[in-house]
Amino acid sequence: MSVTAPLGFRAAGVAAGLKSKDARDLALVVNDGPSRAAAGVFTRNRVKAAPVLWTQQVLTGGRVRAVVLNSGGANACTGPAGFQDTHATAEKVAGVLGDSAGEIAVCSTGLIGERLPMDALLLGVDSAAAQLSRDGGLAAADAIRTTDTVTKIAFRRGEGYMAGGMAKGAGMLAPAMATMLSVITTDADVPAAELDRVLRKAVSVTFDRLDTDGCMSTNDTVLLLASGAAGVVPDPAEFEKKITEVCADLARQLLVDAEGATKAIAIEVVGAAHEDDAVTVGRAVARSNLLKCAIHGEDPNWGRVLAAVGTTDAVFEPDRLNVAINGIWICRGGAAGDDRAKVDLRPRDVTITIDLSAGPHSATVHTTDLTAEYVHENSAYST
Amino acid sequence: MSVTAPLGFRAAGVAAGLKSKDARDLALVVNDGPSRAAAGVFTRNRVKAAPVLWTQQVLTGGRVRAVVLNSGGANACTGPAGFQDTHATAEKVAGVLGDSAGEIAVCSTGLIGERLPMDALLLGVDSAAAQLSRDGGLAAADAIRTTDTVTKIAFRRGEGYMAGGMAKGAGMLAPAMATMLSVITTDADVPAAELDRVLRKAVSVTFDRLDTDGCMSTNDTVLLLASGAAGVVPDPAEFEKKITEVCADLARQLLVDAEGATKAIAIEVVGAAHEDDAVTVGRAVARSNLLKCAIHGEDPNWGRVLAAVGTTDAVFEPDRLNVAINGIWICRGGAAGDDRAKVDLRPRDVTITIDLSAGPHSATVHTTDLTAEYVHENSAYST
Repeated sequence: MSVTAPLGFRAAGVAAGLKSKDARDLALVVNDGPSRAAAGVFTRNRVKAAPVLWTQQVLTGGRVRAVVLNSGGANACTGPAGFQDTHATAEKVAGVLGDSAGEIAVCSTGLIGERLPMDALLLGVDSAAAQLSRDGGLAAADAIRTTDTVTKIAFRRGEGYMAGGMAKGAGMLAPAMATMLSVITTDADVPAAELDRVLRKAVSVTFDRLDTDGCMSTNDTVLLLASGAAGVVPDPAEFEKKITEVCADLARQLLVDAEGATKAIAIEVVGAAHEDDAVTVGRAVARSNLLKCAIHGEDPNWGRVLAAVGTTDAVFEPDRLNVAINGIWICRGGAAGDDRAKVDLRPRDVTITIDLSAGPHSATVHTTDLTAEYVHENSAYST
Repeated sequence: MSVTAPLGFRAAGVAAGLKSKDARDLALVVNDGPSRAAAGVFTRNRVKAAPVLWTQQVLTGGRVRAVVLNSGGANACTGPAGFQDTHATAEKVAGVLGDSAGEIAVCSTGLIGERLPMDALLLGVDSAAAQLSRDGGLAAADAIRTTDTVTKIAFRRGEGYMAGGMAKGAGMLAPAMATMLSVITTDADVPAAELDRVLRKAVSVTFDRLDTDGCMSTNDTVLLLASGAAGVVPDPAEFEKKITEVCADLARQLLVDAEGATKAIAIEVVGAAHEDDAVTVGRAVARSNLLKCAIHGEDPNWGRVLAAVGTTDAVFEPDRLNVAINGIWICRGGAAGDDRAKVDLRPRDVTITIDLSAGPHSATVHTTDLTAEYVHENSAYST
């Protein structure tokens, strides 16, 4: 399962001592080929962690032999010394694999602004390399968790090939992803340029449409590696569909594990003049702390939906807006519609449908409620 | 004090029965002249409440005889019937004053999407008119409270004239104000066009730089009325300074009364290439739920500051960013600086200084921490 479901991949997850508890914190994923084609999508935050800067460089070559990932420290805002640490990590992995550091991707997650304990980390690479196996995918997925309460893995069977993936992330799920790392693998034979096209498309409609707290991390990375070991060149459309399904599956797991959340809220925007308008409106609603509190309190406060829609530049007329919560159209034509008492907000899954009455386009953005537990987890994280 | 500090104004605040509790909920402020010059600044939300649409029309004439304000209902998203209610309210006030409805401003605050109980409201206007007095400013300020825990009033003495004001607002303090209403009065003799210029300038550097939860209301209104009763034409620069001081005083009161907040956070952005960049960065940091939680937990998590700065398009280089919290430069050159243990976050007032190292401009945005109490208040508001 996970990243080792496709042929040609080995993985491991070990406890290197980066976390205070004796938990797994270092993962290694190795592509044994025959292909090493790879693509990556990274945070749009301009403050980028050292491993993001490094891995972006690696990906310009379109080839990745291995990915080393650590939790227990983001190696972000650590200056030139932090970049040297990432470089040394890649060199170490290259050394144990007898390969080139230029094809070693590095991902880190955890607290910003602190150096990694490099002695422990480099010893951990040795230990991970010794444990690499065809069934190491689950241990690798476990090793990249931070505040995640569960490991997140997914796989899909394509026509003659497999796609598998792992992800971590439980907060800061925001435009352009989250503090999230994800590695997706396939044994299909697909060149790097096509992997890049497919991954960008898949991420744009899955991870990019999670917006749990509007915060964009310094470390977000999604990688797609192809070993070609199945010897199959897939149909482009079918391949894109499978990769998108793996991303959507992982994104859903991130959403339901979001820090302190009790509700998974789908904001479905319909009747938009353009798809961009639908996404803009969905994001504005997803970021309304007031609305997120209301849903937490199981209060179908559609006025807060309209107030959020009104902050955008999307095409709409205020008196033509309709809003349904869990299927009840409680706002019609910009004013009160059906009886709000009919809305059942007890289920964990909540759907807010916003009809802009302005065109044929639509998009769905996913978020969570805002809870006292979110505040608690994020007040206490570094102390 | 409050709106009746300047000559030429009478006010009242009464309990009309709009709120469930037997509290004041209707205020009337009357300008007895000789001038009726007035200006207004309104929410930039495209979903505007009926009283905002009405009062924007009134202000195109540059004259206001009276302002009627109610808490207990926002009259927003109430359709054409809601607009008729606002119109009827203005007509009623015009009737009791023997004046024209076209010079009666109306402001409402409270829950969105519900009609106002007009019978009670119109009776309340009679009662308020009967109680109008030169010392009614405090009762008026009390009547516009919603979740405000205190009344908010301010005044300043100018050169030969007075300026006074009242405000309400305790949440949704966001770009372009808040669910906030404010009426500012002066007995200086200033024409409407000059009042408009001064009010826009004053609001842009005071109310507009509060951003407690990023939510922009449907009802925000700030009005400035001049009676001319002091018979003094003030120096323009001195007048602008006094009005700005009244706005800043009221804005500060809004901030410290923000729902559930335990910290008043000033985000001071310096070294910006443009003032707009400084405001953009200040707002991005003010809206980081993660940072607001950290400050609540008294955790000087400068990494979350950098992560927020990195989401903007301001001019800066990540490795030249410096951040101080309460005077300790814990981030220098984009990496760890002075010892974070030196930061004392126990006081209520917190200053985060961000040096973009990109130019000579600066701006300060004010926000609060994010607390479990905020979640609680906003989960329970309408139920």
